[in-house]
Amino acid sequence: MIPTPYLLFLGDVPDQLAAKVAQGIKDWRPENAVGQFRMHGCGADVGVADMTLAEAKEAGAKTLVIGVANRGGVISEEWKAVIIEAINMGYDIASGLHNLLRNENDLQAEAKRAGTQLHDVRIPSVAYPIANGKKRVGKRMLAVGTDCSAGKMYTGLAVDAEMRERGMKSTFAPTGQTGILITGRGVPLDAVIADFMAGAVEWLTPDNDPDHWDIIEGQGSLFHVSYSGVTMALIHGGQPDALVLSHEPTRTHMRGLPDYSLPSLEELRDTVLPIARIVNPACQITGISINTQHLGDEEALRYCEETEARMGLPTVDPFRHGAGRLVDGLAAI
Amino acid sequence: MIPTPYLLFLGDVPDQLAAKVAQGIKDWRPENAVGQFRMHGCGADVGVADMTLAEAKEAGAKTLVIGVANRGGVISEEWKAVIIEAINMGYDIASGLHNLLRNENDLQAEAKRAGTQLHDVRIPSVAYPIANGKKRVGKRMLAVGTDCSAGKMYTGLAVDAEMRERGMKSTFAPTGQTGILITGRGVPLDAVIADFMAGAVEWLTPDNDPDHWDIIEGQGSLFHVSYSGVTMALIHGGQPDALVLSHEPTRTHMRGLPDYSLPSLEELRDTVLPIARIVNPACQITGISINTQHLGDEEALRYCEETEARMGLPTVDPFRHGAGRLVDGLAAI
Repeated sequence: MIPTPYLLFLGDVPDQLAAKVAQGIKDWRPENAVGQFRMHGCGADVGVADMTLAEAKEAGAKTLVIGVANRGGVISEEWKAVIIEAINMGYDIASGLHNLLRNENDLQAEAKRAGTQLHDVRIPSVAYPIANGKKRVGKRMLAVGTDCSAGKMYTGLAVDAEMRERGMKSTFAPTGQTGILITGRGVPLDAVIADFMAGAVEWLTPDNDPDHWDIIEGQGSLFHVSYSGVTMALIHGGQPDALVLSHEPTRTHMRGLPDYSLPSLEELRDTVLPIARIVNPACQITGISINTQHLGDEEALRYCEETEARMGLPTVDPFRHGAGRLVDGLAAI
Repeated sequence: MIPTPYLLFLGDVPDQLAAKVAQGIKDWRPENAVGQFRMHGCGADVGVADMTLAEAKEAGAKTLVIGVANRGGVISEEWKAVIIEAINMGYDIASGLHNLLRNENDLQAEAKRAGTQLHDVRIPSVAYPIANGKKRVGKRMLAVGTDCSAGKMYTGLAVDAEMRERGMKSTFAPTGQTGILITGRGVPLDAVIADFMAGAVEWLTPDNDPDHWDIIEGQGSLFHVSYSGVTMALIHGGQPDALVLSHEPTRTHMRGLPDYSLPSLEELRDTVLPIARIVNPACQITGISINTQHLGDEEALRYCEETEARMGLPTVDPFRHGAGRLVDGLAAI
């Protein structure tokens, strides 16, 4: 668990794109972001108040979150000066950078002296159990994609937000670094040791109220040969009651695999459902989420309508059309 | 790579069962075993010459292999005395024990001083790549089970042995600790980090001669919810041309999961083949291996015959009936 709320560190990144993580925190958990910290030359702005370390501390911030991607995989001396100042003011530091905070001897030493924590969210901090497959109380949803990066995290966050707006009991259960930084908890599933993957997902989504939904963040794709094992463990550890199929219609091949074409939504449905029913015989596919970012408004709507007619399932782009119809489908089971 | 040949350390284990790894080496790679080292009170004997450390060294042994399971998860002082003597004579030490050699400070220090290696085969020693899914030259076989521990490793070793006896080009590709100790190489797949599982299998079975077979050791089961992600990565990383279905007919539930019944061989076939064809559209199921250890001779034969008639695939227990008919099936594709 990363202590919230956060001060969002944007550093000196050149543009908005590099601040994706900070933007995600602001969009999905605004209550977690008391402000942003920008250095000279910073080209990003996520739309919260600019604050100094002292001002944010005063406003209640507990953790400085590195909400940006850095260049060249190095934590610069300029960044370090700020991070060390924050540590000495009692901030925890959280980061999803490839180069780990804990591998920087000076940061490690300062944090030890100050008694604060460095949270490298790419690295598991828990000894997860081996999955036992026992049926858990409560409901669980998982988005599964025809490919990686098809909009599964966005779908989950949008469903969770819509459920909570309706007064339903819902928890977003992150399985990747961005989701973990947004919510302050989760499992970095791609970094878990093989034998413990499904157990980590069980650990993340334990027994809960019968009418509570865990909205589990999807990863990879059963059809993506680099990561399909991770997806499999998510399905069998998550024992979802409901699956939402996710698809990005303009892809010409699987992400990073030029020799592999995407499966159809029918192929995904026919492959994933028997696999999910091994662990939860009642599992259903309740909707389809289309990532229409590369389509025009009308084209996007038409694609969703055609898909809905073809597949017989509520089909929306939750970013464009809202997640309401996906939640209707979930509320019905 | 663990330097071969070995001296097999049996220690003071009470019975033959505890010496399964050493027995596997003797059975499958007798050329790797120059002798066995037994301590006072040892109740195991794998049928090779008893030797002192010095005698085995003289006979060419390069590595002392801990070929037994220890009690209570502790490396005893008695064992340590032998291991340290071996290190000082220039032996590498190899072990699949849960408690790692490298975590014993005295062994670590002695090995460093002597310039020899400690091989903990449960822990990956390679930075595996992420799988790229590129089609590789050569042929690959993988055994997939209705459950864990259904005889997949035995099937692979028997097929490999039969192929080499026929003069076919074959390499057994171990993915678990016993197989790694038997052959001296391999990937401890259950200990690999999630993102690199499929890449580790690609690394293990690279391009080879068009008529060469990699016989990949299977792990877990697509139907075993604790480990199905590992099995998935094996299929997609291995891109098998041929699958052999493995089954143990007397199981009443999935291993360690009392609430889960086993799938039928038909269910396994129908689930695994579309998954395997994502990465290799030409993949075929070429045979079935039945672990009949809990059946009488006649019962075993009848079970195989009935299964063969039902499934339309060559069906044998390779331990009882030999792997010849499985290899016939592979040679035909």
